Amino acid sequence: MYKIAVCGCGVVGSGVCDALIHQREKLSRRFAQDVGLAYVLDIRDLKGTPYEEYKTDSLETILSDPEVQVVTITIGGLDLAADYCFKALEAGKHVVTSNKAVVAAHGPELEKLAFSKRRRFMYEASVGGGIPIIRPLNICLYANDITEIQGILNGTTNYMLTGMFRRHASFDEMLARAQRKGYAEADPTADVDGYDAARKIAILSSIAYGGFVDYREVPCRGIRKVLLCDHELADKAGFTIKLIAGSRFEDGCVYISVEPKLVPRGHLLSDVNSVYNAILTKGCYTGDTLFYGQGAGKEATASAVVGDIIELLGTPSTVTLPEFVNKKATVAPDNRPARYYLRFTSLRPIRAGSLIDLFGDDTLCLYSKVEKDPWEDIDVDVTGAVITPAFTPEELAEKVPGLNPLGATLRLTLKVLDD
Amino acid sequence: MYKIAVCGCGVVGSGVCDALIHQREKLSRRFAQDVGLAYVLDIRDLKGTPYEEYKTDSLETILSDPEVQVVTITIGGLDLAADYCFKALEAGKHVVTSNKAVVAAHGPELEKLAFSKRRRFMYEASVGGGIPIIRPLNICLYANDITEIQGILNGTTNYMLTGMFRRHASFDEMLARAQRKGYAEADPTADVDGYDAARKIAILSSIAYGGFVDYREVPCRGIRKVLLCDHELADKAGFTIKLIAGSRFEDGCVYISVEPKLVPRGHLLSDVNSVYNAILTKGCYTGDTLFYGQGAGKEATASAVVGDIIELLGTPSTVTLPEFVNKKATVAPDNRPARYYLRFTSLRPIRAGSLIDLFGDDTLCLYSKVEKDPWEDIDVDVTGAVITPAFTPEELAEKVPGLNPLGATLRLTLKVLDD
Repeated sequence: MYKIAVCGCGVVGSGVCDALIHQREKLSRRFAQDVGLAYVLDIRDLKGTPYEEYKTDSLETILSDPEVQVVTITIGGLDLAADYCFKALEAGKHVVTSNKAVVAAHGPELEKLAFSKRRRFMYEASVGGGIPIIRPLNICLYANDITEIQGILNGTTNYMLTGMFRRHASFDEMLARAQRKGYAEADPTADVDGYDAARKIAILSSIAYGGFVDYREVPCRGIRKVLLCDHELADKAGFTIKLIAGSRFEDGCVYISVEPKLVPRGHLLSDVNSVYNAILTKGCYTGDTLFYGQGAGKEATASAVVGDIIELLGTPSTVTLPEFVNKKATVAPDNRPARYYLRFTSLRPIRAGSLIDLFGDDTLCLYSKVEKDPWEDIDVDVTGAVITPAFTPEELAEKVPGLNPLGATLRLTLKVLDD
Repeated sequence: MYKIAVCGCGVVGSGVCDALIHQREKLSRRFAQDVGLAYVLDIRDLKGTPYEEYKTDSLETILSDPEVQVVTITIGGLDLAADYCFKALEAGKHVVTSNKAVVAAHGPELEKLAFSKRRRFMYEASVGGGIPIIRPLNICLYANDITEIQGILNGTTNYMLTGMFRRHASFDEMLARAQRKGYAEADPTADVDGYDAARKIAILSSIAYGGFVDYREVPCRGIRKVLLCDHELADKAGFTIKLIAGSRFEDGCVYISVEPKLVPRGHLLSDVNSVYNAILTKGCYTGDTLFYGQGAGKEATASAVVGDIIELLGTPSTVTLPEFVNKKATVAPDNRPARYYLRFTSLRPIRAGSLIDLFGDDTLCLYSKVEKDPWEDIDVDVTGAVITPAFTPEELAEKVPGLNPLGATLRLTLKVLDD
């Protein structure tokens, strides 16, 4: 019998248990022996749940059972989950985790430990939920030199951004809605400020470019400053706003960031809406390849965890270590020229000609409605935006002070995602 | 050293050689030993090509070299390629092929032979070119019960269909263009009539549903009868026409077909254009997952072949056999109600009211321009179409004769792809 232990029976962990129970026969047929859930470790008593009969309070019980081949770690947070991963590998178990914090922080050490123990450490579920992306990058696309990854890697923020535009809702309204639906945590910082996506793009970039990217080095801006008017202005110009976790590999350097960007309509990522995620890779042989699906949620993430279990039971030994395990990536800010979206406010409308004089002929000028002061019947606040020609950050920094003499105050700067 | 032999140095085979030569250092680093091209078998002398130094005329030379671990079979056609696959496995080599004809015809026997020899038989490149799909279906998504696959699996026909609409070109013009660009063979039958896509959806369905689907049982209609006016009429109603290779698994039965269908704008497959392919899977846990990329071409397909080599060198043994190896699928025609697009011609325009009386209230009536006879100044040919409400094939067959009394002659029937 292949015995599987699940540590952490929260949203993802209970999904893994459900899948293992429901698919026991299918998996057992595949491996020509029983493949079954054996232990569930959780701090709660699981009374009255379908997992009660598997409940244990002790990691030691799991690790000392020689019939347990696989330990899945579906605990949130960092330290305890990492500790369990190390202990399980030390005890000679294969480890599968959905915990991206552990992978982003301790991936290389855990990979090395697994390799030295001739066991596998797998984490398909840590990025993109149910979307196969780790294994495709690590194997199927490995013949390529991967030059770029652009992803929508956080379902919560994508749900919020999609909803703001579709429902004409504010950030706060959509955050409350996401929390009601269980898409956002009570403390939404990790999602909303981009830290979740930063860990995920760091993991993917490490695999794709062969050097470990420390997620703490990923420049990261969230979506708090994106207003409903930004969606409306961007839409007029043919763009949607998405939180893009992207990286590029050039001249030995990883250029990486998480930030809201304007995505041109028709771009492969522009129609990825609501809680869906997508990852676009560019390879020297394959060109553009896109992976799209449910980036989070109990069942989709559980599917990825069980996929890893299937992989390692089928091919329990591997002779390779990923390159990033022994090499640190050089991370740098992306200073390539890009088009920029600049939103400003002013007390009076500004002539398009003045903005074109400032930013150049290919500048696109966008105005939202002028708000009137109902008592005075004078314009008190004009919101406008431009989409500039391509500038380097230095060139942009030289131009921006030119808004002041026009009476405009810069409120938001976003990059445009161009191919 | 890991020695690799390439049999068949045509479009795909030469791409594999190029990738192995170009990525030798990267692959050798991964496996901590030299991974290199050792033999190229081809009927041509390869004088003046980069492959000349590897050239051999004899399969025997390859099979008798104990240092050769992997034989890639990138020969077209069926019999010789299949023969080489069997011989290489018999000789104890791992086999990787891009030849979908071999996989569709002999997959189960080759899988069984490989398993008995403790070697691997791999064919990621046989479906979807550079898009990872075989391994994701077989491992990453295996925890799911897959209930449906809908794919655009043939780049040639997708290029032609896209071009007909965009360029207002005829089938013959686009076929000639595809041939000039090297996207279509001199004999385009396999692509244009859907046989290529039928083999591919048979392979994917076998893996996904766990029963071998004989490609000869796949109902198959090509794109020869789709006219430019069909694209224009469909577009007016918010659809694009795509050659859809699809299957569904329900009550133990595989409902499968290859046929041109109207795809609603906004559907994940509606924006897959030109030579790109995409595969949409529906799983009980993951919901919709989409894989998109270059479905053919030398470099993309070579990438998939080398991905298989990387997989099997990393994990050379597997303890599992796919379920379809020992079980044949029950294949049936899909009789679920569907909306239908019916194009007809008539000598006089037909009142929309008559068509709605015939097909029901939710019928959508579409007319293209009425052609006038330049000598007589009378209408000689009206082309029109309806999109019907959902009917079973039987219900449709009852309605269609009602077109005759209206003076209409049915010219083309296509299904609508609804979710």
